[in-house]
Amino acid sequence: MSADFQLSLNTGTTRNLTLQEAVDATARAGLGHIGVWRDRVAEAGLEEAARMISRAGLQVSSLCRGGFLTATDEAGQRAALEDNRAAIREAAALGTGELIMVVGGLPAAAHVLGGTGDRGDKDLVAARARVADRLAELVPFAREHGVRLVLEALHPMYAADRAVLSTLKQALDYAAPHPPETVGVVVDTFHVWWDPELEAQIARAGAEGRLASYQVCDFNLPIAADALLSRGMMGDGVIDFATIGRWVAAAGYTGPVEVEIFNQEIFDQDADVTLAVMKQRWASLVLPSLTGEPARAPA
Amino acid sequence: MSADFQLSLNTGTTRNLTLQEAVDATARAGLGHIGVWRDRVAEAGLEEAARMISRAGLQVSSLCRGGFLTATDEAGQRAALEDNRAAIREAAALGTGELIMVVGGLPAAAHVLGGTGDRGDKDLVAARARVADRLAELVPFAREHGVRLVLEALHPMYAADRAVLSTLKQALDYAAPHPPETVGVVVDTFHVWWDPELEAQIARAGAEGRLASYQVCDFNLPIAADALLSRGMMGDGVIDFATIGRWVAAAGYTGPVEVEIFNQEIFDQDADVTLAVMKQRWASLVLPSLTGEPARAPA
Repeated sequence: MSADFQLSLNTGTTRNLTLQEAVDATARAGLGHIGVWRDRVAEAGLEEAARMISRAGLQVSSLCRGGFLTATDEAGQRAALEDNRAAIREAAALGTGELIMVVGGLPAAAHVLGGTGDRGDKDLVAARARVADRLAELVPFAREHGVRLVLEALHPMYAADRAVLSTLKQALDYAAPHPPETVGVVVDTFHVWWDPELEAQIARAGAEGRLASYQVCDFNLPIAADALLSRGMMGDGVIDFATIGRWVAAAGYTGPVEVEIFNQEIFDQDADVTLAVMKQRWASLVLPSLTGEPARAPA
Repeated sequence: MSADFQLSLNTGTTRNLTLQEAVDATARAGLGHIGVWRDRVAEAGLEEAARMISRAGLQVSSLCRGGFLTATDEAGQRAALEDNRAAIREAAALGTGELIMVVGGLPAAAHVLGGTGDRGDKDLVAARARVADRLAELVPFAREHGVRLVLEALHPMYAADRAVLSTLKQALDYAAPHPPETVGVVVDTFHVWWDPELEAQIARAGAEGRLASYQVCDFNLPIAADALLSRGMMGDGVIDFATIGRWVAAAGYTGPVEVEIFNQEIFDQDADVTLAVMKQRWASLVLPSLTGEPARAPA
């Protein structure tokens, strides 16, 4: 294969950096792409963020994140739609067509976690139906702005508090009523590596033209005390990147590959070190699987 | 419906008790069933365990657990088969037809967790194939002993270190080549509540005559620092027991319902308190969903 796969830093990996610092580190490491979180963009200001990324010669591989569509009340639903329209406008202004969507959890989760929210609402079937409804309401706006809503299946351990969208199949089923250029899916290895249907659903995503992003990081063991921080550098955990990468390439994906790692040790280390290790692991564990070369042991 | 659903204590819930103490507490609470773990049976001695359970007027709803079938080397595979044959004999001696099977994880998980094991073996597809192979080797022995191998899909957060069997669909697919009286499945709410295919797969399990056990506990948030201990008392977490119970009853399940909770706070409290709360939550949250009555708020 001759596809020119490119490594991209997702700013979630370098959470302690400002956008300018993350852009500088990415450019210094010789990468051409960056995936950006909205909080860092907001701190910099949208126009200034677009300018600094462009000045550094980088392209934005995706904007993280829209979503949180499971509110039960009208005010909450209206607020979610408004926030997602803002995210769509931001994606367009940053020159990326891909807006990653984390769809939100159960109303009851907020109650269980903090004593707020609706204690009674544990109805997962209904929460999932609300996601499909809100998505349909957002599609025309996204389409007008040339932005794709990229549905992210999250690991089932986050089904209650982060995303009731739990498998790639389910993401593709939700995308199905909408045009592939407006609703896609992301394969994030951490979230989907365990799925017995993964090969078939990656192939389906490719065949349907919805494979919008490939994000890599490892699944570390033991699960971190804060379960959100269990993501690890490729090679440090249990994920078989060789196999998943082969499936992603076979599905026709040729876009940038983002590394998004939430991990306290990585947050705390020098970003240049993080990027150097990222590049090594990319070259040894991820890129060969995409290009069809045999994997190499990390240097 | 007129089915006479019965509550059963799984001894994993009262981990600090000896088998005799757990049997006494179960009988004192007026329950008719107990689900037992092999370690507690071994401590008591198999024949004495069978006698003490019978003396107390209890029936064994299941034996936990066989499995751990993913070894790559011949010696490891032989040891696993031998251990599972022992578990089958124990189940028969205890008068239960149901042996719960936790199939085992990736060889690489032991390495990632503790620096032992095969660093390189992260091949999930191959590990899953080994499970199917070992299962086929065990089926004739189980059949001769009138014991059903009950495949347990574990939550995907344990896919690396506990069970590469991650969904009820996958469990049923593995069971499919074998007679339903010899290979069944268990629905454990903690492990499967998040699954978008759950309703359909529970119905399938019923239709195929493979729905061998229903185990209930809640999914607590936040996930415990030791992820194995995130199971909670029904009502304390995020699971919609009303909906899942309705699906289980609709699939024709009428057997005992085990409560299996691994939770440090519950391990540390008086077992009579645990059983009293269990009975309340059973009556208010679980039993009504099975019998078709509306759920009641816990007393």
